[in-house]
Amino acid sequence: MAEAGAFAFEVTGRDPASHARTGRLTTPHGAIETPAFLFCGTKASVKGVSPADLRAAGTDIILANTYHLMIQPGADIVAALGGLHGFMGWDGPMLTDSGGFQIFSMGHGSVADEVKGRRGQERPQTLIRITEDGATFKSYLDGRQLFLSPEGSMEIQRKLGADLIVQLDECTPFHVDRDYTARSMAMSMRWGDRCLADFARHDDGRQALYGIIQGGVYPELRQECSEYTRDRAFFGTAVGGSLGADKDQMREVVGYCMPHWHPDRPVHLLGIGGIGDIFAGVRLGIDSFDCVSPTRVARHGWALVRGAPGERMNLRNARYREDPEPIDPACPCYTCRTFSRAYLQHLVRAKEPLALNLVSVHNIVTMNRLMREIREAIGGGTLDALERAWIPDTE
Amino acid sequence: MAEAGAFAFEVTGRDPASHARTGRLTTPHGAIETPAFLFCGTKASVKGVSPADLRAAGTDIILANTYHLMIQPGADIVAALGGLHGFMGWDGPMLTDSGGFQIFSMGHGSVADEVKGRRGQERPQTLIRITEDGATFKSYLDGRQLFLSPEGSMEIQRKLGADLIVQLDECTPFHVDRDYTARSMAMSMRWGDRCLADFARHDDGRQALYGIIQGGVYPELRQECSEYTRDRAFFGTAVGGSLGADKDQMREVVGYCMPHWHPDRPVHLLGIGGIGDIFAGVRLGIDSFDCVSPTRVARHGWALVRGAPGERMNLRNARYREDPEPIDPACPCYTCRTFSRAYLQHLVRAKEPLALNLVSVHNIVTMNRLMREIREAIGGGTLDALERAWIPDTE
Repeated sequence: MAEAGAFAFEVTGRDPASHARTGRLTTPHGAIETPAFLFCGTKASVKGVSPADLRAAGTDIILANTYHLMIQPGADIVAALGGLHGFMGWDGPMLTDSGGFQIFSMGHGSVADEVKGRRGQERPQTLIRITEDGATFKSYLDGRQLFLSPEGSMEIQRKLGADLIVQLDECTPFHVDRDYTARSMAMSMRWGDRCLADFARHDDGRQALYGIIQGGVYPELRQECSEYTRDRAFFGTAVGGSLGADKDQMREVVGYCMPHWHPDRPVHLLGIGGIGDIFAGVRLGIDSFDCVSPTRVARHGWALVRGAPGERMNLRNARYREDPEPIDPACPCYTCRTFSRAYLQHLVRAKEPLALNLVSVHNIVTMNRLMREIREAIGGGTLDALERAWIPDTE
Repeated sequence: MAEAGAFAFEVTGRDPASHARTGRLTTPHGAIETPAFLFCGTKASVKGVSPADLRAAGTDIILANTYHLMIQPGADIVAALGGLHGFMGWDGPMLTDSGGFQIFSMGHGSVADEVKGRRGQERPQTLIRITEDGATFKSYLDGRQLFLSPEGSMEIQRKLGADLIVQLDECTPFHVDRDYTARSMAMSMRWGDRCLADFARHDDGRQALYGIIQGGVYPELRQECSEYTRDRAFFGTAVGGSLGADKDQMREVVGYCMPHWHPDRPVHLLGIGGIGDIFAGVRLGIDSFDCVSPTRVARHGWALVRGAPGERMNLRNARYREDPEPIDPACPCYTCRTFSRAYLQHLVRAKEPLALNLVSVHNIVTMNRLMREIREAIGGGTLDALERAWIPDTE
């Protein structure tokens, strides 16, 4: 059991056949059951879904992105409005990331694609330089030059006021070599120490700090960084950076870390949200996940469905043009209780803004249902059967 | 009292100082109190607002556009899914227009601007020809050639299944001369007779038909067309077409019609939704209004506020950057109970899709509140005082 002031993490059950576990993560804004999924409210708003809709969809934890919010509207404005909780009207637990991922993502062209092993199209590079002090980069909004240090990230996250906050790290692209990865990781660990020191100076019990495991695809680097986080006074552990080129490599990389991270602390896997990936992560002992995918795919007319080929249904498919069925007859969400696939297809095709809201609500309910069923299956030792029910086409 | 099957309109009160009146309009999907405002669900969706949100905002009647729906997804698909009520999950009263306004609007370049006296930028002309039979035009979606006759409009509106439907008419631009307006109006009246005949052939008590008063800005044409609708078996009367170049001319034009329309039937003023215009219309005996403006202005960050200069508040204004107040402290809506002007400004500036939903909900609640207060003021003889409260800068 990990404890720090009002924060606690308690393991409440274990899967007999894997490292999967259930737990309870307590924060000043309430406790959540793990494994849990955190929905992304990047700019202090989950795209097209109000806090009331999030709650009605069974959501109990969300995250917001330090990088976007430090640029617009700025951390001071959020602080003046009561922090993120007051600002965005969310009264449950929240996490902010450090800002590093997006700085390096936008800076290196597209790390977001690269850490997942995809080489995307070129984007304008906004990262100017990385030094021991921190990162200098250009605002995505107006091009003005900005600087983020470990202490600066802590200060901004303090102003944003999320319950769970994360140390600053450099997020290395997938293609960089072992030498660069090792040097970058060493600097991220020094940044971690500076974050811890700054956090300790200001700690008033309202926040808890996660360390990050970097180290690319290199087993001994992942081990070293896992031991680093284990041996420091972080409340939680986050797994970040390049997780390999595909699902199997992601499992491998998380597997390099798992034996060496702190066994009693909550572990968060950054930026992973596929249903198959979640089953794989849960089996390796991951306690929480986040990803933009449930709302991002909704925007393109994809509905997450238990048991669907490829984990989801393409509402644009002509076969649904006159289909009176809801997305998922077994789903209790507002969208499935009220609307047909035909109507949702119409909204998606007509580019009606309501499509984003309705399909997102369904996807959020579905992810919350997935996590609840995973927690029940861990308790009952039926994780394999549950995975086959959610992903029948899995090997 | 007008009656037709399950439909009825009863005047329940009159303003001592004007032609304003309160009423009750009964349809197979429930009764509404008038004067009422109809929110536009153009493509079978009020932009960004679910039926549940509409209901929570106190809405009891909406409309949808025949023109858009006949093209996408098509009237047969809507019919197969249970008509508009089943298709879009709205169980209250609904109105569809005839399709004419948009055909001629898009056809003449931009009648939507012209009927309101604004000469807008050029748009591609999609109207091919108008004959006694009907209108031939190109689909806005894929350019295919389409044809709409009076009987076709009735058939499509029958398939869409709204409670209140409207005869096909030609909507003449503002700039056309008296001769064109007179000839067009005469054809619209012949189209009205064909709509009435077709409606009578298929009438099963589920719908009620409105005739339309055209006649441009010409008093004797407006009188002639008002008498035409009065002397036919329409259930209701709609005032359409060019209403002049400004608010004063709109009052004049409606004033030409008012003495001659049927005094016992509900009167709908098409496409008018400014708060000042509504007060003016109500005083001339208008029972219902519709306009896209409450959701359209929301998209641009404008919130309707009782007593605000110009009827609304620009949420993008820098003065609200750190403003912790809700849009309107006196407003009971979800948005005002939950969010600050500062947060809404952030959402608007960040182009977050939630902005549309939250500001629209506020604007819808505000319009419903306006109409409720207008109904109360008619009963109490306090319409002038109410107008000064809503529009303090009015003359």
